[in-house]
Amino acid sequence: MNDSQNARRIPVAELEAFCLAALRECGLGEADAHVTTDALVTTDTMGIYTHGVKSLRGYINRLRGGGLKADAAPRVVKAGPAWAIVDGQSAIGMVTSVFAMNAAIEKARTAGTAYVGVCNSCHFGAAGYYANLASKADMIGMAMANDKPSMAVPGSRSAVLGSNPFAYAVPAGEEDPLFLDIASSAVAGGKVRVAEILGQRVPDGWLVDAEGAPTTDPAGFPHRSSLLPFGGHKGYGFAVMIETLSAMISGGAAMAQVGSWMYDDPSLPTQHCAAFLAFDVGAMTPIDEFKKRMDMMIRELRQAPKAKGADRIYVPGEMEWAKRRESIAHGIPLPDDVLDSLRGLAGDLGLRAEWL
Amino acid sequence: MNDSQNARRIPVAELEAFCLAALRECGLGEADAHVTTDALVTTDTMGIYTHGVKSLRGYINRLRGGGLKADAAPRVVKAGPAWAIVDGQSAIGMVTSVFAMNAAIEKARTAGTAYVGVCNSCHFGAAGYYANLASKADMIGMAMANDKPSMAVPGSRSAVLGSNPFAYAVPAGEEDPLFLDIASSAVAGGKVRVAEILGQRVPDGWLVDAEGAPTTDPAGFPHRSSLLPFGGHKGYGFAVMIETLSAMISGGAAMAQVGSWMYDDPSLPTQHCAAFLAFDVGAMTPIDEFKKRMDMMIRELRQAPKAKGADRIYVPGEMEWAKRRESIAHGIPLPDDVLDSLRGLAGDLGLRAEWL
Repeated sequence: MNDSQNARRIPVAELEAFCLAALRECGLGEADAHVTTDALVTTDTMGIYTHGVKSLRGYINRLRGGGLKADAAPRVVKAGPAWAIVDGQSAIGMVTSVFAMNAAIEKARTAGTAYVGVCNSCHFGAAGYYANLASKADMIGMAMANDKPSMAVPGSRSAVLGSNPFAYAVPAGEEDPLFLDIASSAVAGGKVRVAEILGQRVPDGWLVDAEGAPTTDPAGFPHRSSLLPFGGHKGYGFAVMIETLSAMISGGAAMAQVGSWMYDDPSLPTQHCAAFLAFDVGAMTPIDEFKKRMDMMIRELRQAPKAKGADRIYVPGEMEWAKRRESIAHGIPLPDDVLDSLRGLAGDLGLRAEWL
Repeated sequence: MNDSQNARRIPVAELEAFCLAALRECGLGEADAHVTTDALVTTDTMGIYTHGVKSLRGYINRLRGGGLKADAAPRVVKAGPAWAIVDGQSAIGMVTSVFAMNAAIEKARTAGTAYVGVCNSCHFGAAGYYANLASKADMIGMAMANDKPSMAVPGSRSAVLGSNPFAYAVPAGEEDPLFLDIASSAVAGGKVRVAEILGQRVPDGWLVDAEGAPTTDPAGFPHRSSLLPFGGHKGYGFAVMIETLSAMISGGAAMAQVGSWMYDDPSLPTQHCAAFLAFDVGAMTPIDEFKKRMDMMIRELRQAPKAKGADRIYVPGEMEWAKRRESIAHGIPLPDDVLDSLRGLAGDLGLRAEWL
């Protein structure tokens, strides 16, 4: 693993303990601190370092500033047989999102499928974590959210839509769940920031400058450049769909109304919206049969004849599950930018950790 | 419009009359003939010529061969509060898909959201037509389907998954519905076939040859080359999700089990699967408010500052609605390959049309 050459492996339990301590320090209740910690640390175990504990310092900055409320509790404001609308009430994004996905799972248990729209949340980290809550409950899960605009659309010079993320997870039998977590942009903004820190150019197709012209310079993102959608009109159309399912049904903040969890005054709520879907497969077809079919599909994909130069085919999520197992066994190889952020957070709160 | 320079404009009513006559000739009942005709001709009015009446000759070939059954009726085989599974029973794909989307709309009227999975269908033409049935009913609609493998996945040398299409539509107020209809592949296979007919190369990123190496030669697709997914692992993961929602829940044919509606023995059913989702927005939020918000979002997108050299920004579906209005007013500018296919069909059935 390349990661481990440049990164130190931190035991999962120690990283969890640090996050819990930091969240308790900000007045978060025990249950909410555990929910938030599990979402962030699980994401890091899967190697998605741009969306894990690296963001905790920013969330906590907003908790301390008052834009996020440590004692807020998300609540269902409207509901029907196969849907609900959740108002996050400026609780931390992980708390609201876990609450909302659990509501979708519960609704799907009686209705078969369910949609939950969310308003007044915050950045929710990795969409994939919530999709996998459904797969653990033997359901297909989907999670998506809007974000402050950081992505140009075809023909625009500046950011119009967020890099709206989408994730799904599907339970399998002997195989790991299928799992995909993607941005509507060619890449997540976090990868541009990492390139800037490392002093690297970014590939063509990631960014446009303030005139709307292609650029490979990561410096100044997101203020002086914007992401591009994946596949041109495809990623654009996808981001608009996510904006609709997240913000238009819930009645929450859309597009330029959404605040930046990183850059805006921490006393302000960011008002992110999100949407969660659950499909209770076992209500529709015998769950064991379904899982066997999933295993067969996964193996058919993996065993397809290889292209010249390719030694294996990965199924969606396979790399992330492998990293998770390795992280649990040997610790999480946190990159330097993540460790730096944690050190900053430790300094903010006067916390200590031996491994930091 | 470029189309009109190289293509003759056929009045919508005349194209419909021709399709109806052809379908009646094959024993299709009056209602089913109208459903099929409307799906195909509407698709052509929107300028999506690869998925409209061009395919009718192939569908009719299979109707006459016995692989599709003119007198079959799709039926709901299982259902719950917010879902249903439909067995197409080898009815023509448009008939089964309209039936299934209508079932989703009906379920969503009571449950708020609904999923309908479909097995034993056939190629369903343009996914977007079905999504728009929901938007006409003031709902958000999604439609997707699997297909015979024509797409390589990252690391494979040959086709493993279909170019599984996905579409959504969202009702708006004064604006046209938002509307996106895309393949999981970089392009739909029909565009490769059009390039071959026109003697053109295809762009990089569309195809790999039989060794899994990139190629720009459209000749021999899909037998000697395969499509690539859009955005690499993103389109791949998307196609797997569609395969799951279409085939894995309904228990129908998946991946290599699906037949080719174009190339396989016409006495065989192709066993395509599909999935349809409906979200009854008006059950969750006042529909007029929702539509006003959609109009605002659409205008915010359209009015974003333009990139150098761009004179306007289109919202998803805007070009297609404009083409539809022009087609209705002045006739459909059918390209030569579509007219050729219709002439072949007229020959097969001994039909005539003055404009053909």
